[in-house]
Amino acid sequence: MGRITTIGFDADDTLWHNETIFAASHERYCELLARYHDAATVERTLYATEMRNLPLFGYGIKAHALSSIESAIEMTGGTISADEIRAIIDLARFMLEHPVELIEGADLVVPALAAHYRLLLLTKGDLLDQERKVQKSGLAPHFDHVEVMSGKNPAAYRALLDRLAIEPASFLMVGNSMRSDILPVIETGGHAVHVPYPITWQHEEAAPPVGEGAERFHQIQGLGELPSLLERLARSSGPRL
Amino acid sequence: MGRITTIGFDADDTLWHNETIFAASHERYCELLARYHDAATVERTLYATEMRNLPLFGYGIKAHALSSIESAIEMTGGTISADEIRAIIDLARFMLEHPVELIEGADLVVPALAAHYRLLLLTKGDLLDQERKVQKSGLAPHFDHVEVMSGKNPAAYRALLDRLAIEPASFLMVGNSMRSDILPVIETGGHAVHVPYPITWQHEEAAPPVGEGAERFHQIQGLGELPSLLERLARSSGPRL
Repeated sequence: MGRITTIGFDADDTLWHNETIFAASHERYCELLARYHDAATVERTLYATEMRNLPLFGYGIKAHALSSIESAIEMTGGTISADEIRAIIDLARFMLEHPVELIEGADLVVPALAAHYRLLLLTKGDLLDQERKVQKSGLAPHFDHVEVMSGKNPAAYRALLDRLAIEPASFLMVGNSMRSDILPVIETGGHAVHVPYPITWQHEEAAPPVGEGAERFHQIQGLGELPSLLERLARSSGPRL
Repeated sequence: MGRITTIGFDADDTLWHNETIFAASHERYCELLARYHDAATVERTLYATEMRNLPLFGYGIKAHALSSIESAIEMTGGTISADEIRAIIDLARFMLEHPVELIEGADLVVPALAAHYRLLLLTKGDLLDQERKVQKSGLAPHFDHVEVMSGKNPAAYRALLDRLAIEPASFLMVGNSMRSDILPVIETGGHAVHVPYPITWQHEEAAPPVGEGAERFHQIQGLGELPSLLERLARSSGPRL
């Protein structure tokens, strides 16, 4: 097993809270539409709209806002008022302006690992929004490179590692999304550490890797466990006598 | 004067048409609002909304769509119908799905220069949208690196050139926006070639550079003139006997 030299961190729900902000916004969205539909119907319809728009709109808060407006028009049979639509745009503004709240351990683990590893921040979403959050987080100086990706699939990881001259076997990705942070990295030949977040967006759910590469998959319960896991991996990859 | 080894190309309205698509969409937007306001008022109000939202929403079609909806609600005193708002979202879809139409000369000049220079594609806007346009354009294989930037200011150019290990004096940027493609590059110590496009978004307008660095500024009337300009610059930077 190759020695790990580079660690990629997902951002939303790995280094800072994000789904909690989406959830707060979503609750207000459901309240806006409560006289038309129950929360379960609102959630199901919005998700269907988002999935339909994903290939064209991509990820991020602005895409989410456009789908939310479209979905609200659909769910109300076109009777939603302009004021209510303005309220949906204000929800996007609420999310974009929200302070960055670090996940427990991020403030200690990231600087500690930066002393021994090359750190990358690899995230999806709106370009400007993600760059702003990196800055607000205070963690920016510890990262050698920040990349906002339009999608996290094996081809995208392969292209990125290739461009940064990183061997997949020396790369380890840390994230909360099985679908975006774990499976494609394992498929690319890298290592991956899953740190679950209490809420997962339906779209990001997937089963853990099985079969080839599964030995390069690890799971921990919090970022605080990451340094000791890395020490164990470094020991097991060291030269044998 | 240093020898130029790397050429950066802006994308929208430099390599392919963009403002014409925005203009077609804007015309339909004005028609939607024609019973409330004349076109000049619509344009002025929308531009004010876009400028107010720019720091939070950034560039690109999705930001434009959200500002267009917000501005339409404002201009109609909240009486715009949900169907009309859906029509505004459909305008965004129209722009995102629009075929890429290359600007005259791009199909010949880009491959020809790729044989002698390292080419970069440096653009603003929505990440996914711009990546898709690069792919659709057929020009992707000629570029060594594609970067979607959240803003084109001197600090952003400096960081990018630094990351790609490019000396500013060996870099030349080609673009239609004085504000985004020319002035910040001249300020960074690079060369810049302005290729005007028939329509310029108000926000991108600026006076040409004067004073220090103005000798590194050039203007041509079409991409077809770029190879001969580069030859002249190469001769003037060559070793003197």
